[in-house]
Amino acid sequence: MANVYDVAYALEKAIRDSDDFKRLKQLYDIVNNDASSKRLFDSFRETQFELQQKQMMGEDISEEDIQKAQQQFTLIGQHEGIAQLMQAEERMSMIISDLTRVIMKPLEELYGAPEGLQ
Amino acid sequence: MANVYDVAYALEKAIRDSDDFKRLKQLYDIVNNDASSKRLFDSFRETQFELQQKQMMGEDISEEDIQKAQQQFTLIGQHEGIAQLMQAEERMSMIISDLTRVIMKPLEELYGAPEGLQ
Ligand SMILES: [Ca+2]
Ligand SMILES: [Ca+2]
Repeated sequence: MANVYDVAYALEKAIRDSDDFKRLKQLYDIVNNDASSKRLFDSFRETQFELQQKQMMGEDISEEDIQKAQQQFTLIGQHEGIAQLMQAEERMSMIISDLTRVIMKPLEELYGAPEGLQ
Repeated sequence: MANVYDVAYALEKAIRDSDDFKRLKQLYDIVNNDASSKRLFDSFRETQFELQQKQMMGEDISEEDIQKAQQQFTLIGQHEGIAQLMQAEERMSMIISDLTRVIMKPLEELYGAPEGLQ
């Protein structure tokens, strides 16, 4: 019987060694090692975070907020490095969500799928 | 290079085969196959869920709500099968949270630990 922690460490290593993670890390480093790309990306992230916070707090989102987000989104889309990084992030986030779904299966079968997944 | 999905399935199997999961399943079946235990446990879960919902919605929690929860908690504590099941659930939930923390490490190292975990 394999120890669950040993297998989890093997999974951690497999993630680290995967092409998807290596590519993500490479793109992350390219964007963050270039001062102007980093500034653009950080500012985009901050705007996204502020909008999310406002939504969660039920605050009004102004037309100015939306315009700012759209402008940044356009800028980001024109920046090949950042666009590639965002695609790699989305892909990695899908993989991680698949993996956690797999390891939640035993409990899900015992308790039933959470509402909305049934 | 191990495929991440293969390793995730191995982890799923290791969880299923673990003594902790087998014990949880056994206790879950014992409680749920006895009509009166099941009723008690379901009603306890429902009360807990209602209290959580009220807290999340910022609704007032009445003295009656608290008394009801306390009474059920006392009843549950006296019911050996349910008390054991709850311990086994808590243990399994700690294990799962450990495992997901391990597989989140590569991304956490890249992006930095989430606020509050630093
Ligand atoms: Ca179900
Ligand atoms: Ca950090």
